[in-house]
Amino acid sequence: MDIDLSAQEKKTWFFQMVKEFPSKLKDDVTKHVKNVQKFGKDDPRRIIHSLKVGCALTLVSMLYYVRPLYNSFGVTGMWAILTVVVVFEFSVGGTLSKSLNRGFATLIAGSLGVGAVHLARFFGHKGEPIVLGILVFLLGAAATFSRFFPKIKQRYDYGALIFILTFSMVAISGYRTYEILGMAYQRLSTILIGGTICILVSIFICPVWAGEDLHKMIANNIDKLANYLEGFEGEYFPQPEKTLKETKSCAREYKSILTSKSTEDTLANLARWEPGHGRFELRHPWKQYLKIAGLVRQCAFHFEILSGYVLSDVKAPHDFISKIQEPCSVMSREAGEALKAIAKSIKKMNKDSVCVNAHIENSKKAIENLRVALKSYSPETEKDILEIIPGVTMASILIEIVNCVEKISEAVKEFSVLAHFKETLDPKLSPELRQDLHQHHLLHRGSVKPVLEGDNEKEDSSSPHVLITVHEEQPPTTNEKKVLGAEKTRVYVV
Amino acid sequence: MDIDLSAQEKKTWFFQMVKEFPSKLKDDVTKHVKNVQKFGKDDPRRIIHSLKVGCALTLVSMLYYVRPLYNSFGVTGMWAILTVVVVFEFSVGGTLSKSLNRGFATLIAGSLGVGAVHLARFFGHKGEPIVLGILVFLLGAAATFSRFFPKIKQRYDYGALIFILTFSMVAISGYRTYEILGMAYQRLSTILIGGTICILVSIFICPVWAGEDLHKMIANNIDKLANYLEGFEGEYFPQPEKTLKETKSCAREYKSILTSKSTEDTLANLARWEPGHGRFELRHPWKQYLKIAGLVRQCAFHFEILSGYVLSDVKAPHDFISKIQEPCSVMSREAGEALKAIAKSIKKMNKDSVCVNAHIENSKKAIENLRVALKSYSPETEKDILEIIPGVTMASILIEIVNCVEKISEAVKEFSVLAHFKETLDPKLSPELRQDLHQHHLLHRGSVKPVLEGDNEKEDSSSPHVLITVHEEQPPTTNEKKVLGAEKTRVYVV
Repeated sequence: MDIDLSAQEKKTWFFQMVKEFPSKLKDDVTKHVKNVQKFGKDDPRRIIHSLKVGCALTLVSMLYYVRPLYNSFGVTGMWAILTVVVVFEFSVGGTLSKSLNRGFATLIAGSLGVGAVHLARFFGHKGEPIVLGILVFLLGAAATFSRFFPKIKQRYDYGALIFILTFSMVAISGYRTYEILGMAYQRLSTILIGGTICILVSIFICPVWAGEDLHKMIANNIDKLANYLEGFEGEYFPQPEKTLKETKSCAREYKSILTSKSTEDTLANLARWEPGHGRFELRHPWKQYLKIAGLVRQCAFHFEILSGYVLSDVKAPHDFISKIQEPCSVMSREAGEALKAIAKSIKKMNKDSVCVNAHIENSKKAIENLRVALKSYSPETEKDILEIIPGVTMASILIEIVNCVEKISEAVKEFSVLAHFKETLDPKLSPELRQDLHQHHLLHRGSVKPVLEGDNEKEDSSSPHVLITVHEEQPPTTNEKKVLGAEKTRVYVV
Repeated sequence: MDIDLSAQEKKTWFFQMVKEFPSKLKDDVTKHVKNVQKFGKDDPRRIIHSLKVGCALTLVSMLYYVRPLYNSFGVTGMWAILTVVVVFEFSVGGTLSKSLNRGFATLIAGSLGVGAVHLARFFGHKGEPIVLGILVFLLGAAATFSRFFPKIKQRYDYGALIFILTFSMVAISGYRTYEILGMAYQRLSTILIGGTICILVSIFICPVWAGEDLHKMIANNIDKLANYLEGFEGEYFPQPEKTLKETKSCAREYKSILTSKSTEDTLANLARWEPGHGRFELRHPWKQYLKIAGLVRQCAFHFEILSGYVLSDVKAPHDFISKIQEPCSVMSREAGEALKAIAKSIKKMNKDSVCVNAHIENSKKAIENLRVALKSYSPETEKDILEIIPGVTMASILIEIVNCVEKISEAVKEFSVLAHFKETLDPKLSPELRQDLHQHHLLHRGSVKPVLEGDNEKEDSSSPHVLITVHEEQPPTTNEKKVLGAEKTRVYVV
């Protein structure tokens, strides 16, 4: 809009605005409604949680609406409402942690408060407020200080808060109220009622388990890494036969992993409060997830650096690139497949080390091939060594990534033992054959070659080979059936 | 201890244990006490905060102890105690955010609650609890859902919680209490008293500003990066004349930056609630800190990868290393100096672009030197190109780090304008000379050479040069005085 607008133009512009206002408002409102709908659809558990809170509130309000209940609790029923509102969290672990913290802290602080009031009464009416004041000051300060300690902060922060709250309230109001025992009892019982309602609604109506969320998050993070590696080949190396659109570009989902530590820590912390549920036992090794998550993040750091070289316009000369293309492609592809297999094994809670090891061995073999390729490359001019730097660095980081993937696989293997993952080797295979397979695998490290979907390479059909089918859902029928064509079956020629 | 212990041996062992118990207990207790002392000394603000909470609690308890105050508030004084306990946070921003959220949410929800009760009374004694129940369910669920939206979660999460709490309490207890207006008023006024006490104690007794913490944290993080680079040369390159102990090793403090995002986000969020204080105005560009922090973290990711090569035993052959040692050392040293200067400029809130630019230009010049060195390197054998890979990768990542440092410097420059940093150029320099300096600097990019402490290189004394002294504390006297020897003065020969 011009600054030197004439008065007439301004007027028409103003009327235009007024005219358009209703339709604009309508657009805005529908946009917002759509946003909210989309937000709810993204994770329907949010809607369910909101309804659960409403439900718990309605339940607890019965303390007021139902005459016999109101007669026994009176206005202290208010504490039950308060408890429901502040204690009800999204996950079962969160609700349990807060409820238990609140319950125990109230019990301990209430008893101490009653004790403090009785103690203070020895000092006469004048001395009582002074003694109580000093006690409140000291215990309040000490409990506040304790909240800074990492261990207490992590698990008992809310408990310490409620401790200060309850102790102060009992001790201070004890000066004016003479029925503090009754008051403490009523406060405790209403908190118990509120807490129990929360825990029951939280566990029995569409529960959200923090442990399950953590489990899925770690598996998904590994999948995100795999997705990046899947697109790497297409994005880094020139694909003559494909157009730019067809080339699968790297998924940048891994970026969320870089800063996901606090979420993981919180989930692991809450998971430890949860009882056994579904596939997770009471003493599930939750801490182990954090170890895996740390290695996954380490791998994501490498991706972040690699990504800079992928996006950079400065690439190595064509003859160098074509020399390293094959081994680098195999490295990234196989490492990606290994990560996919690891993620699947976590998701299904099945041991799948044969498949994972095979892919890792393949990518290690590719590292060897890369070394051979580099050895045979002799720079033609002086300038050449300078120009190949980006390519060399990229390859070097890719090697580090393969090492990271191996570390992740080892951590998951350790975890799979602690978490009692199921074996997935075909149960119809005899123990001897399994032993054979294992030995064969150990002797011919690097020669394990998975048949990938759409893999056109010719197999040496004369060599003797054993087929292992790793079924996903359906029970196995024979060892050689359903080998090809079945979409969800992966075949290994050992 | 042997498993086949005889009964006699077991007995002596048991008595030994009993004997040692008191001394062990004493050791444990003194250990714990020392730990707590150390924890308090690490950040004495923790102790002060604890005492402040105790103080606020004692103040608020006057509502009970002082007869006239008790007569006007009665048992609702309890809400003031409750408010103090839950609202008092470590930083001023935290306390303000919670107090304001609590105050406004109580006001809005209280009014809505009173309205809801009046509305429900139209439906008769039987209909009332049903209408109230439905309203509590709907508003409770809607407010809970709103807490999932990132924007609300970030700033108004506590407000939404208190909204649900107050609305439910007023609406539900309104069914039994007929003086709900009085109740809502008392609740609001006691919350105001509690909140005001918290805000006053928080601001006027040794305040802890989240904004200042964020400011210091960012500057310290940049310093951590600089410390790593300072030790890099000594750790990566062989230092024949120094023993292993003398070699300054890389400080690994930067690791904390990798996962500090959530802390930074929280601090920036709280800082926005704080009024202007000290060197920070009300509308200080807090968001800009997050941008700088992101770039600092990006740089730390590179350090993490570099660190792998520093610690690795596989290094490039000696002749290659000696070729790249000089430029790489200069790169890391100058980038480190640039970071130190940036951190200092943030800490002092002074513009210091001349000094920072000079260091960055120097490190860029070193990149050029590295290129020349690499160009002149011709591998003698086929194997050589393979062996130099770790060295090449290290150098390549170092180049990326220099780029990162440049980005950080640009972001800080942008920030320094927004945050009105002071100019540090010698005020006695005439504007013409400053202009000259600037132009000279632009024309001779890369030829800016700082005289470092302990730098033994010879200067071309015949070339004309201008000395700029950048003073830190003392006001400038002349342009050429205090050039050498003064520990806290940095000199540039342009």
